[in-house]
Amino acid sequence: MKVYLTRRERFNAAHKLWVEDWSEEQNKEVFGKCSNKNWHGHNYDLFVTVKGAPDPVTGFIMNVKDLSKILKRRVVDKLDHSNLNMDVDFIPKGIQPTTENLVVFIWREIEEEIKENGAELHCVKLYETENIFAEYYGE
Amino acid sequence: MKVYLTRRERFNAAHKLWVEDWSEEQNKEVFGKCSNKNWHGHNYDLFVTVKGAPDPVTGFIMNVKDLSKILKRRVVDKLDHSNLNMDVDFIPKGIQPTTENLVVFIWREIEEEIKENGAELHCVKLYETENIFAEYYGE
Amino acid sequence: MKVYLTRRERFNAAHKLWVEDWSEEQNKEVFGKCSNKNWHGHNYDLFVTVKGAPDPVTGFIMNVKDLSKILKRRVVDKLDHSNLNMDVDFIPKGIQPTTENLVVFIWREIEEEIKENGAELHCVKLYETENIFAEYYGE
Amino acid sequence: MKVYLTRRERFNAAHKLWVEDWSEEQNKEVFGKCSNKNWHGHNYDLFVTVKGAPDPVTGFIMNVKDLSKILKRRVVDKLDHSNLNMDVDFIPKGIQPTTENLVVFIWREIEEEIKENGAELHCVKLYETENIFAEYYGE
Amino acid sequence: MKVYLTRRERFNAAHKLWVEDWSEEQNKEVFGKCSNKNWHGHNYDLFVTVKGAPDPVTGFIMNVKDLSKILKRRVVDKLDHSNLNMDVDFIPKGIQPTTENLVVFIWREIEEEIKENGAELHCVKLYETENIFAEYYGE
Amino acid sequence: MKVYLTRRERFNAAHKLWVEDWSEEQNKEVFGKCSNKNWHGHNYDLFVTVKGAPDPVTGFIMNVKDLSKILKRRVVDKLDHSNLNMDVDFIPKGIQPTTENLVVFIWREIEEEIKENGAELHCVKLYETENIFAEYYGE
Repeated sequence: MKVYLTRRERFNAAHKLWVEDWSEEQNKEVFGKCSNKNWHGHNYDLFVTVKGAPDPVTGFIMNVKDLSKILKRRVVDKLDHSNLNMDVDFIPKGIQPTTENLVVFIWREIEEEIKENGAELHCVKLYETENIFAEYYGE
Repeated sequence: MKVYLTRRERFNAAHKLWVEDWSEEQNKEVFGKCSNKNWHGHNYDLFVTVKGAPDPVTGFIMNVKDLSKILKRRVVDKLDHSNLNMDVDFIPKGIQPTTENLVVFIWREIEEEIKENGAELHCVKLYETENIFAEYYGE
Repeated sequence: MKVYLTRRERFNAAHKLWVEDWSEEQNKEVFGKCSNKNWHGHNYDLFVTVKGAPDPVTGFIMNVKDLSKILKRRVVDKLDHSNLNMDVDFIPKGIQPTTENLVVFIWREIEEEIKENGAELHCVKLYETENIFAEYYGE
Repeated sequence: MKVYLTRRERFNAAHKLWVEDWSEEQNKEVFGKCSNKNWHGHNYDLFVTVKGAPDPVTGFIMNVKDLSKILKRRVVDKLDHSNLNMDVDFIPKGIQPTTENLVVFIWREIEEEIKENGAELHCVKLYETENIFAEYYGE
Repeated sequence: MKVYLTRRERFNAAHKLWVEDWSEEQNKEVFGKCSNKNWHGHNYDLFVTVKGAPDPVTGFIMNVKDLSKILKRRVVDKLDHSNLNMDVDFIPKGIQPTTENLVVFIWREIEEEIKENGAELHCVKLYETENIFAEYYGE
Repeated sequence: MKVYLTRRERFNAAHKLWVEDWSEEQNKEVFGKCSNKNWHGHNYDLFVTVKGAPDPVTGFIMNVKDLSKILKRRVVDKLDHSNLNMDVDFIPKGIQPTTENLVVFIWREIEEEIKENGAELHCVKLYETENIFAEYYGE
């Protein structure tokens, strides 16, 4: 039996989209206002889904408090009130911190530790605004 | 052709997480504040998804009013303003009413009747809070 | 690597559910208040998901601004402040504009142009109210 | 002591903004897409606030179920799945069903009956979309 | 100059509405399903508004982190995962824990400490569900 | 007769809270993570309320499209994807861009032009996150 459990966490961060090898015009053409040199930012909404069979005694796939602790230590403490281009150890420098890339980096950062807690990571979903979000399922 | 149709229903209920065979300390260690003897509660948000081909005349997979009626009679009328540990016929006593377990019990309660209405149950999704939800796809 | 990117758009429209070959009683019995001759309407919430590998330079599956432009030109400009039974070129006359049918028509309207932009259409999801939505995955 | 109690109800309706004495061009210039002859529609979100002192025994300003019943009978049953220009007895014909006008008409429709239930009407607030709402306080 | 600052906190709790002096029938008649002996519960959403002039150096009316700390220590830590009829020191026994009464008790619990932090309490607003909330302004 | 009309707009921006005259320790003590030198950011949700009597012909206090245009030209175009400490002409340099200060600056920027459109500015409300917002009523 497979049940899916999702925990939401939130973080607020600054970023910009900017390719160093490109001219300012090129950056503006592709990234529009997201290329503002002085940065802009977002309230990010993160949904992490794990899967597994509920334990017959506790009814837990994994304790959601443990899931929350992992997400806080590995993701939220690093990304909240940060600059996503400059401040985060698991986001490679020079890579654009688009929502599409962020879900992949977050997946890689937490996959192992969730497995150690007896569940399997299923999905990392990240809202940049109420109108844009990305999802990654590890494949 | 397969289209998915989802109906939301809501119910408010009390519960606690408590294993009878464990000491109070053990219960507190595993379940934290959820083990409060005097109960606590939630506004649950239920999303039930059925699938099928839209009828060429009505454009319906199944009449969403019929889906809502099934959910009200089989789920909401039983769970709304109830105690999930004590009051609900289709939740086995002694089983923890975690969100992960609830989606499985709700699935079993409604699967047959949805089939009798010409659609196929696809997913039961239940929010316990805005930060925690579980999903079950019948497997 | 496959990442999923979703863009939300909104439109407000009128419609009714009404089968011409049926009597008023039949229409009322099946469609209830949705068969009101004088129409009713909704704020529709549209979520379109595309998939693909993020570009190594831009971090984009496809530029979300291009996705938004396609959705505005092909869907929102045609459906917003429209009558879904009468005004929309890609909704066949006489077909019920149920949410289940609308997601299929929208899929067909945008699938090709998204492919031309280098991404693959994954899902069209449409909320009719906060309590009802439909999804279509192209199969 | 004055406490404020608010109840939300919802209804879905069609309408258009159209001044009979004006040309089509004038109507389009002032009302834009809202003047579409074939109507459009919205999911309306209604918040009605009453005020009073909580009863020392029941803790109620007025029973929220009674408030809900009044709103359903006097407002929702009349406006839900209706055409706001044509179908509603308490909306004068020829008057534009803007959100600003609707809150005034709804106020007049319910003020008396709330008083008869021992509370005082304080505010009628109506969302036309997530981006536009109007409020009326009776003055 | 007067600016208003609001902080949201959340808590989940069980309660019931039940007048000891009344028969079961009377309780059922007035309180409906809220009188279930085995309790029910809610996710409460609390909005506390303070007012004052922003400090010319910090731009703060009061540090929102201090406001949050007060709300957590005085309200959330006591009410979260509690039974509102039994567990909370500042809710008098025998008084109905309706939303209307709760906003008054919460006001009294925090008014003084907010004043000690240099701001003035303006409003306590509490959502019991997405459809019902109460407000108190101290008068 | 006085009716209140509210329009929501959104913008995403970077900022930090930092007093130049203070040491890094002082800034950290007062502003916590908000003092990160590399900036952080938010999705801001702006609600602007105007008041007046609905026009007997149009049913408008003022045309909500004109209100939206003013807000876009005077506020959103300047603040969206900006750095609130550096990029905005109507936010004085050296002043902390707290939510409390922002609502006052936005009020001053738009008050006059709303009056010229025949309505009266009533409230500027700004959400920094789902948990924090500020309001200003011009006094």
